[in-house]
Amino acid sequence: MTAEIVSVGTELLLGQIIDTHAPTMARILAECGIACKHRATVGDNLDRIVETLRQALSRADVVVTIGGLGPTSDDLTRDAIAVAMDDTLETVEEIEQKLRRWFAQNGYQWVESNARQAQKPTCAEIIPNPNGTAPGLVCRKNGKTVFALPGPRGEFDPMAYDQVKPMLETLGGQSVIHSRVLRVIGVGESSVEEKIQHLMDAENPTVAPYAQTGEVHLRITAKSNSKEEAEALIDPVEQQVRAALGDAVYGTDLTDLESALIQLLTARGETLAVAESMTGGGLGKRLTSIEGASNAFRGGVLVYNAQVKDALLGIGPIVDEFGPVSEECAKAMAESIRNKLNTTYAISITGNAGATSDTGGKPRGRVYIGIVTPHGTSVHESSFRGIRDDIRTRAEQVALMRLRELVLKQA
Amino acid sequence: MTAEIVSVGTELLLGQIIDTHAPTMARILAECGIACKHRATVGDNLDRIVETLRQALSRADVVVTIGGLGPTSDDLTRDAIAVAMDDTLETVEEIEQKLRRWFAQNGYQWVESNARQAQKPTCAEIIPNPNGTAPGLVCRKNGKTVFALPGPRGEFDPMAYDQVKPMLETLGGQSVIHSRVLRVIGVGESSVEEKIQHLMDAENPTVAPYAQTGEVHLRITAKSNSKEEAEALIDPVEQQVRAALGDAVYGTDLTDLESALIQLLTARGETLAVAESMTGGGLGKRLTSIEGASNAFRGGVLVYNAQVKDALLGIGPIVDEFGPVSEECAKAMAESIRNKLNTTYAISITGNAGATSDTGGKPRGRVYIGIVTPHGTSVHESSFRGIRDDIRTRAEQVALMRLRELVLKQA
Repeated sequence: MTAEIVSVGTELLLGQIIDTHAPTMARILAECGIACKHRATVGDNLDRIVETLRQALSRADVVVTIGGLGPTSDDLTRDAIAVAMDDTLETVEEIEQKLRRWFAQNGYQWVESNARQAQKPTCAEIIPNPNGTAPGLVCRKNGKTVFALPGPRGEFDPMAYDQVKPMLETLGGQSVIHSRVLRVIGVGESSVEEKIQHLMDAENPTVAPYAQTGEVHLRITAKSNSKEEAEALIDPVEQQVRAALGDAVYGTDLTDLESALIQLLTARGETLAVAESMTGGGLGKRLTSIEGASNAFRGGVLVYNAQVKDALLGIGPIVDEFGPVSEECAKAMAESIRNKLNTTYAISITGNAGATSDTGGKPRGRVYIGIVTPHGTSVHESSFRGIRDDIRTRAEQVALMRLRELVLKQA
Repeated sequence: MTAEIVSVGTELLLGQIIDTHAPTMARILAECGIACKHRATVGDNLDRIVETLRQALSRADVVVTIGGLGPTSDDLTRDAIAVAMDDTLETVEEIEQKLRRWFAQNGYQWVESNARQAQKPTCAEIIPNPNGTAPGLVCRKNGKTVFALPGPRGEFDPMAYDQVKPMLETLGGQSVIHSRVLRVIGVGESSVEEKIQHLMDAENPTVAPYAQTGEVHLRITAKSNSKEEAEALIDPVEQQVRAALGDAVYGTDLTDLESALIQLLTARGETLAVAESMTGGGLGKRLTSIEGASNAFRGGVLVYNAQVKDALLGIGPIVDEFGPVSEECAKAMAESIRNKLNTTYAISITGNAGATSDTGGKPRGRVYIGIVTPHGTSVHESSFRGIRDDIRTRAEQVALMRLRELVLKQA
C-alpha cells in the first residue's frame, strides 16, 4: 500500500512557516507499514490543489491532506477533494448546529462562512475535532482513501495520532500493521545494526534502524489480525533488542531523552540542577518542556561571563586559574550549583561554540560537561563540529545522556 | 517568472528530518519576485526524481533542488537532472583534483565514489561550496534553469543566500528584482496594513505584510536595472514605513528580535540578566544563540521551584505571601537578579504553562513579565492561549519586545 502527503497553504510556499506536520504524518505512515513515495506542497488555489490531488490519487492508495479546512474563502481543501474525487459537497446539519453552539458559548459572532466547516464530500465521514472548530474528513471512493486533517498544531497532532493512525493501521482490510519505536542513545547506527543483525533479517516483525541527531531510532513493525496480536508479536522482539543493547534503549515511541530523564528522576524521587554557560539555557529549556518537570528539575544558573560565574557560584578563583572552558571550571560549576540547590544531581556545560566567546583559547567545538552524583563528580571532554546551534544541541544531548547513564548506575 | 522547489531524500519521506531548507529557498524566491507555486519532496530513487523534475520543468521557469549531491550511490540528484534535461554527465577534472587534495589534507581515505561529486551535466556551471565537498550546480538549457544545492545545513544556507540569491535576482535578464524585509513587533497585521495602506497600492516597489509568530514582516520588493538601483527605490519606502510605524520596526532581513536586542544593548554598552521560571531557560537560549551575545548578556537564574527562588534570589517571603505566579514575584525576581549581577537591565518571567505547575491557582496561560531598568521596575501581565510550547514562546517574545521598548525610551 502506498500513500502521498499533500500540504496545503500559500504560507508554506512563501516559506513563512515550516511544515512540521508532514514529517509527523510521514512517520505515522511508516509506522503503519504504508510506503510514502511523494510529498507535495501547494498553495490556496482550487485548480492547483485539485491537480495535485488527482496526481496523488493516480499513483497512491491513500492521500493525506494537511490544512485548508478553516472557514475562510482561501480554505479550499474540502472543495478540492470533492472535485478530485468526482463528488459533491453536502452540509452536515449536526456539525453546523454544534459550531453555532460553540460560537454562542464562547461569545464569538457567527458569520455565515463558518458553516463551510460543516460541509463534506458525500463520500466522506467526519473525524471529530475536540480541539478546534474544523472537523477532519476520511473520504472513501473507488478504492482510494483521502484523509483531510486541520493545520493548527494543537488540532493536527491529536487527530493524527489518536484518530487517523488507528484507521491507517487497519487499512489493509483483515490485517493490522502496527509499530513501536525504540529510542537508542550512545551507540552509533552501524554498531546498533551489528548488535541486532539477527533481528533485522526477520519478516514479521521487521526491525529497521534510523539515525537521528545524537541518537538512533529502531522501528519494530508487525503485521497481524489485530493491534493486540501485533503488540504480542512486538513484545518479544523489544525484549531481544533490550537484551542486545541494554540501557542504551532509553524510551519508546514519543518519549524523548529529556522526558525519559525526568521520568527516571521522578520515579526515584531525585532532583536535578544545571549550571549552563555555552548552552545559555538550552538544557533547562529542554528539561522544562515536559509537563510535570518540576517534580525533578529544580533550576539552575546561566553563567555567561566570568564575573557572573563568581557572583552566582563563587568560583571566580577557579575561572581565573584554569579559564572558563576547562575541566576544572566544569567541575566547580556543577558542584557549586548542586550545593546551592541541594539536589541529588547537577549538570554543568561550558565550552566554545563560536569565534567571539570568552573561552581562554580553547578551540571552537570544545565542550566540558560536568556531572555530580551522590558518589562524586565526573567531567567529560568532547569536541563537536558544525554550526553554533549544532555544537550547543549536541552538548545538551551528551549531557542528558551521561547523566542518565550515571543515574542508572546508582543503586 | 515561476519556480518550483524539489527536496530530495528518503529520510524526508520517512519523516526523520524536518525540511527547513525548502522554506528558506521559498523566502528567497519570494524576495526575488519569483512565484513558487509547487513544492515536491521525493526519495532517493532515480526514476521518481526524474519524473518529479520533468513535471516541475514542464510548469516552471526555474527549479531548485535541495539535497542528493553527496558521494554515495543514493545521491542521485546530479544524475536525475542530466536525464530530465536530456543531457549527459561529465567530470570536472579541476574539481576532482580539489576533492582529492581535500581528502589528503584532512586525513580521510579517498574512495572512488567521491569522484561523483566532481560530475556535472554538460549544460551546468559549478557553484563553489566553501563549506563542504559537494559543489552546487546551475544548469541552463532550453530556457529553463535548474539550481542544485547540497543538503547539509552549514552548506545550504551560505550557498542559498550568498551565491544563488544574486543569480535569482538577475534571472529576469536586464531587470533585477530585489527585496528588503522589515520586521515589525507589537503591532498586529491588520493595524500594520491600515498604517501603510498608501504604500501597499504602489507597483514598484511593492509592499506586502506577512504575519509571523508574535510579529509581522513587511517585504518591500523593487524591480530595476541593478541591485543598487533597486536599493535606491527601496530606501525611501523603508523610511516611509519607519515614519508610519516608528520603533515597532525592529530589524531588517535576517535580524531576529534577540539579535536586534543584543545589538542595541551592545551599541549602548549596556548589559542584561534574566530570571526565568516558566520558560526554564528559553529566553537565555534565544539571547545566546547569537555570536557575540556575551557583550551584552551576562547570565541569570532558572528558578523552577519555590525553594530555589529563595536559595538563588532570596525572595522566599514574597513567594510565600503572593505565590510564584504573581506580579510581586515577577518584580522581586527581576530586581534581585539585577542586583546580584549588577547589570543595566533585567527580565523575569513567571507564569503557568501547564496543568501541573506549582502556580498558586493562577489560570493556565497567565504570565507575569518583570523588567527592571535604571529608572525602575514594571511588570506586564499577559494571558496566552495554545499548547505549552506556544505559551512559553509567546512569553519570551513579549519579554524581549517590552525590554526593547523600555531601552529605546531611555535617554
